Amino acid sequence: MAGNTDTEVLIGGKVYTLTGNESEEYLQRIASYINGKISEYTKVDSFRRQGADTQAVLLELNIADDYFKARQQLEALQDTLEQKEKELYDVKHDLVTTQIKLKSMEDTLKELQEENNENQKKIVRLETEMGAGRRDEGNSPGNIQDISRGGHNRRRK
Amino acid sequence: MAGNTDTEVLIGGKVYTLTGNESEEYLQRIASYINGKISEYTKVDSFRRQGADTQAVLLELNIADDYFKARQQLEALQDTLEQKEKELYDVKHDLVTTQIKLKSMEDTLKELQEENNENQKKIVRLETEMGAGRRDEGNSPGNIQDISRGGHNRRRK
Repeated sequence: MAGNTDTEVLIGGKVYTLTGNESEEYLQRIASYINGKISEYTKVDSFRRQGADTQAVLLELNIADDYFKARQQLEALQDTLEQKEKELYDVKHDLVTTQIKLKSMEDTLKELQEENNENQKKIVRLETEMGAGRRDEGNSPGNIQDISRGGHNRRRK
Repeated sequence: MAGNTDTEVLIGGKVYTLTGNESEEYLQRIASYINGKISEYTKVDSFRRQGADTQAVLLELNIADDYFKARQQLEALQDTLEQKEKELYDVKHDLVTTQIKLKSMEDTLKELQEENNENQKKIVRLETEMGAGRRDEGNSPGNIQDISRGGHNRRRK
């Protein structure tokens, strides 16, 4: 807003000098809005027939009606905003809860993967040992000696 | 809103009969608001010194100022609401994405747990087989025969 300035506005065909801290642009917009109301009303016979005092009060009532309607819209919008904020709060809460679950599950998954890797290594090791064990059984020097000795024994008889 | 009714309101000490589809309660609230402005303004010397026409225009300007200020608030609130809706949309989107990730991770975790169970069973089975294998090795009839036969052989010499 600009500082205190004098602004001349034309309302209902008369010039008024307004002093205040509102910008000239803002005051001209208000003047233009009031002139719109005046020209709208003066088209109506029943309005034109009224005295200046009554015309002024009817205009005031009409402008105040616009104000009250805007305030009603404002209240409705504030309610809507409150609902949205509540919804936003709830959804954010859900998001955080879900993110915490996800983080915890990632940790569990990592542990399980490590455990699984260890188990798989263990399986390979066990299978290797068993494979070696079977080869040992099949080719054990004891068995070969046993057979050869048995043979020699038999040949010696 | 009530149907078309006549409502008498007192504004600036004069009675006006208003016809319209607004409720009497609403029109009385507007009348009361305008009377508040009038009594506020008539306390100010510079206002009292003005002619009736100028006083009326000043009142119109002041009420219109309230209306414009309410409209500014309305616009600001609409902007805030839009931002909240955008934020809500984004957070909902994040929530859905996180929920999908969580679901997928739950599936992976379940598979991994099953795989892990299978691996653990396999380890137990392999270890049991190996244990049995070692017992077989330790008590194999071949070995006993080998030793006993070797013993006999030595004794025979």
